[in-house]
Amino acid sequence: MMTADHDTIVAPATAPGGAIAIVRVSGEEALAVCDRIFRGKQPLARADAYTVHYGRVMDGERVVDDVLATVFRAPHSYTGEDSVEISCHGSSYIVSEILRLLIAAGGRMAQPGEYTIRAYLAGKLDLSQAEAVADLIASSTRAAHTLASTQMRGGYSDELESLRDKLLNLTSLLELELDFSEEDVEFADRRALRETMEQIGREIDRLRSSFALGNAIKEGVAVAIVGAPNVGKSTLLNRLLNEERAMVSEIAGTTRDVIEERANIGGVLFRFLDTAGIRSTGDRLEQMGIERTMESIRRAQIVVRLIDAQIGAGGSEPDFELRPEQKLLTVYNKIDAATEGFQLPEGAIGISAKRGDGMDELCRALREAVDTEGLYHGDPVVSNGRHYEALTAAREALGRALEGMDQGLPADLLSEEIRPVIRHLGEITGRGAIAPDEVLGNIFSKFCIGK
Amino acid sequence: MMTADHDTIVAPATAPGGAIAIVRVSGEEALAVCDRIFRGKQPLARADAYTVHYGRVMDGERVVDDVLATVFRAPHSYTGEDSVEISCHGSSYIVSEILRLLIAAGGRMAQPGEYTIRAYLAGKLDLSQAEAVADLIASSTRAAHTLASTQMRGGYSDELESLRDKLLNLTSLLELELDFSEEDVEFADRRALRETMEQIGREIDRLRSSFALGNAIKEGVAVAIVGAPNVGKSTLLNRLLNEERAMVSEIAGTTRDVIEERANIGGVLFRFLDTAGIRSTGDRLEQMGIERTMESIRRAQIVVRLIDAQIGAGGSEPDFELRPEQKLLTVYNKIDAATEGFQLPEGAIGISAKRGDGMDELCRALREAVDTEGLYHGDPVVSNGRHYEALTAAREALGRALEGMDQGLPADLLSEEIRPVIRHLGEITGRGAIAPDEVLGNIFSKFCIGK
Repeated sequence: MMTADHDTIVAPATAPGGAIAIVRVSGEEALAVCDRIFRGKQPLARADAYTVHYGRVMDGERVVDDVLATVFRAPHSYTGEDSVEISCHGSSYIVSEILRLLIAAGGRMAQPGEYTIRAYLAGKLDLSQAEAVADLIASSTRAAHTLASTQMRGGYSDELESLRDKLLNLTSLLELELDFSEEDVEFADRRALRETMEQIGREIDRLRSSFALGNAIKEGVAVAIVGAPNVGKSTLLNRLLNEERAMVSEIAGTTRDVIEERANIGGVLFRFLDTAGIRSTGDRLEQMGIERTMESIRRAQIVVRLIDAQIGAGGSEPDFELRPEQKLLTVYNKIDAATEGFQLPEGAIGISAKRGDGMDELCRALREAVDTEGLYHGDPVVSNGRHYEALTAAREALGRALEGMDQGLPADLLSEEIRPVIRHLGEITGRGAIAPDEVLGNIFSKFCIGK
Repeated sequence: MMTADHDTIVAPATAPGGAIAIVRVSGEEALAVCDRIFRGKQPLARADAYTVHYGRVMDGERVVDDVLATVFRAPHSYTGEDSVEISCHGSSYIVSEILRLLIAAGGRMAQPGEYTIRAYLAGKLDLSQAEAVADLIASSTRAAHTLASTQMRGGYSDELESLRDKLLNLTSLLELELDFSEEDVEFADRRALRETMEQIGREIDRLRSSFALGNAIKEGVAVAIVGAPNVGKSTLLNRLLNEERAMVSEIAGTTRDVIEERANIGGVLFRFLDTAGIRSTGDRLEQMGIERTMESIRRAQIVVRLIDAQIGAGGSEPDFELRPEQKLLTVYNKIDAATEGFQLPEGAIGISAKRGDGMDELCRALREAVDTEGLYHGDPVVSNGRHYEALTAAREALGRALEGMDQGLPADLLSEEIRPVIRHLGEITGRGAIAPDEVLGNIFSKFCIGK
C-alpha cells in the first residue's frame, strides 16, 4: 500500500513560455523549506492561510527573482498539507533556479500526479475524481470539459457507492444466514435479492453503454470523409480545420495546442481520419488506398460520403456498409459548379468546400450526430477506460452470481459470487480501500508534473 | 501621448499546457468585473488586498471551474490598479471560457505588454526597467538572467539620470548667461563644462562598449566550428548540444524550450553557427561551402578551429584571419585514435568528440572566452539595441557640442547643441517625459500577452 508521505515536494505547475510561472510546494515542511530561500517582510511560517506575500527568492545574497508567495495551511489546501505557491517571472532559468534552491533547502522533485495522489490519500478526492482532474486539464472542448467537470464533482461516484452499499448489505445478510445455518432461516429474501441484483445490472449496463459517447467526446469523434478521387476530400478537410481556427483565434493565446486534423465543432472534438489515398496510379497502390479507406470507415463514428455534384453518385466511389451505430452524412461538393437543373437529393447536404458554401449546415449536421443532451443535463457518462473495464468485470461477475442464484446456490457460495462484483465496483472510486500501489502508479503516471 | 487608461483588461498570463493557468485582470473595475462571474464566500470587492479566495467561475448556473482568486488593490499591484489573478485548471477550454466570460462582464482583451505599459505609466517602472521585464521572462541562462535582473532593478538608469541632470544643470547655467548677455558674464565655467562633458562622453563610451558582451549574452555567443571535411564538426556539435541536454534535464519540466543548436554552457548561451558544408563533390559546391564558412567566421565571436589529431594541421583546412576582438580555440579531435607519439601543441585542447574525452576542458575554454566577471559583480551592461542606438546618438551629439565649444560657440548655440544629448539619454529611461506612443508601441509590441 502506498503510504501517505508528507515530505516536501516541489514542481513547476505551469508550462514554460508564459509571462508568469508557478512553482508548487507541498508537505509538512513546505513553509520552512520556502522560508529558507524567501525573503519577505516576515517569514511565511508566520503568515495566515490564504494570504499572498511579496518578497524575493534569494540564492545566498544573489536575488533570483521578485515573487509572490501564497500560503495555504493544512488541511485547507489541494493536498491537505501546508502548501506554498510561488509566482515568479515565467523564465525557464528562474523556474529551474527556484526548483534547485527549494531542493537544496529540503524539498524534493514531485512525481507526476503526486499532488493529486496526496489529495486522494487525504480523502479530498476519490480515485475517479482524481482521474477527472487530469481529464479536466486536458479538455479543450465544452463537451470534454463537461464530462470531466461532472466526474470531478462526484459524477457517478455516489451512484456506484450506493450500488456497492446495497450489495454489501445483501452479502452481510447472506453471511448472517450461515451463523444460523442449523435453523434453515433466510434473512435475505431471494426475490428481493434477485430484484436488487437485476436493478444493479441495469445500472451497470446503462453506465457501460455511455462509454461509446464518453470515449468519443474525450478522444474526439472519429469522422471518415470518403469519396472518389478529386471529389475534394482534402479541400473539405482543410476547410473544416480552418473554420475552427478562425473561431478559436478570436481569443488570442488559446490556439497553441490545436492539433492537426482535429477540430472543435460546436463544443465537441472531431478527429478526421486519414482517407486520402485512393489513387489510380497502379493496381497495388489503388488497392492499398482502398484498404486504408475501409479501415477508416470501420473506425469511424461518422462517415461523410462526399459526392461530386458535377458528376453525381456512383462511378468510382468506394462501396461500403455501416454498422447500425455508425452515422452517415451524404454531402454533395462543388454545388457552385453543378450543371443547371442539379437537384440536391432529400437529406443530402450541398457544399462548396472551395468557396465555403454550406459549411454551417455540414458543421451542424456533424454536431447533431453526437448526442450530448444528456451529458449537458448531468447524466453520468463514463469516459475512462479503466472504469469501463471495471464495470465490464463487475457485470460479468454479476451475471455469474445471478446464474448461481438460479441454480439455488447456498448462501455462503452465493455470497462468494457477489464479492467480486463489490470489489470491481469499488475499484472505480477507490473509496472502500486505498488502491494498491500498482493501480495508483498506473493512474497517476499519466498526470503531468505539478498536478 | 498614450494616456493612462484604466479600463479593465484581461489576459492569460501562463502558457497553455500546464497543470495550472492564471488569468490576469486589471483596471478600475477589476473587482466588479470578476464578481460578475465569480461565486465565493463573499464578493471580491469586499476582500482585503493580498488575500486568496476559493470559489467558482460561473456561466449563469453552469460551473466553469473551481478557482482561486487573488485580490490586489491599487496602488499596491503590478499595474498600480485594482487587480485579480484567477488561478484555474490549466485547460485551454477553461481559460478561453473564463476570458470570454470576463469580456462579457465588462473586461477587454489586453494588448501585448499592456500590464507593463500601465506599470510604466503609473511610475512603477521606467522604460528601461519595463524592457528588462521582457528580457527577464525570455532569459534561459544565468548570464542573461543577471543582465535582465540588474537592468530591472535600476541598472544604469540612475547613472544615466545623473548624467542627464548634470547636463540639464549646465544648460540652465548657459541659458542664464543669456539673461545677462549685456554684462558678458560666464556662469558656466567653460573649463568645468568641458570636463563634465568629457566625463559624460567616457561614461557613454563605457556603456556603449559593453553592448558587444550584453548582446552576445542575450542573443547567444556566436561560435563557428571550422575544420577540414571529416574532422568531426557535426559530432562535436552534437556532443556539445547533448552535454547541455543532460545537464538541463536533471530538473524535469524545464527543457521544453531548448532550441536546436543553442546550448547553455556554464550559465551562458552559445549559438553554434552552421559551418557544415565544405564538400569536395565539385568546384561550385565546394566554393559555396567555403563562402558559408567564411561568413560564419565573420559573424562569430569565437572560432573553434578543429584539427584531426590523426592528420595534423594544414592540408585541406580553410584559411581565415580573425579580428582582434574575436577569440580562437584550437582543438584537436580524435585524440583517442592519434598515432603514438602525438603531441598536443601548447595551448591547444585535445578531445574525442565521439567518446566525449576533453569536453569539460573545451566547455571551460568556451565559457572563459566570455568575460562575465563584471556583469556578475553588478557592472552595468547594455544589452538592448534601442539603448545602444540612443547612446550612440547621444555620443554623436556630444561630439558636436564639444566641437562647438572648441570653436567658441556662444552660450545659446552651445546650449542648443547639448539639448539633443539630454534628449537621447532621456529616451532610454523615459523618465523625463512620457515616451511617445510610437516608441511605446515599438517596445511593448514585442512583449507577450498577459505581461
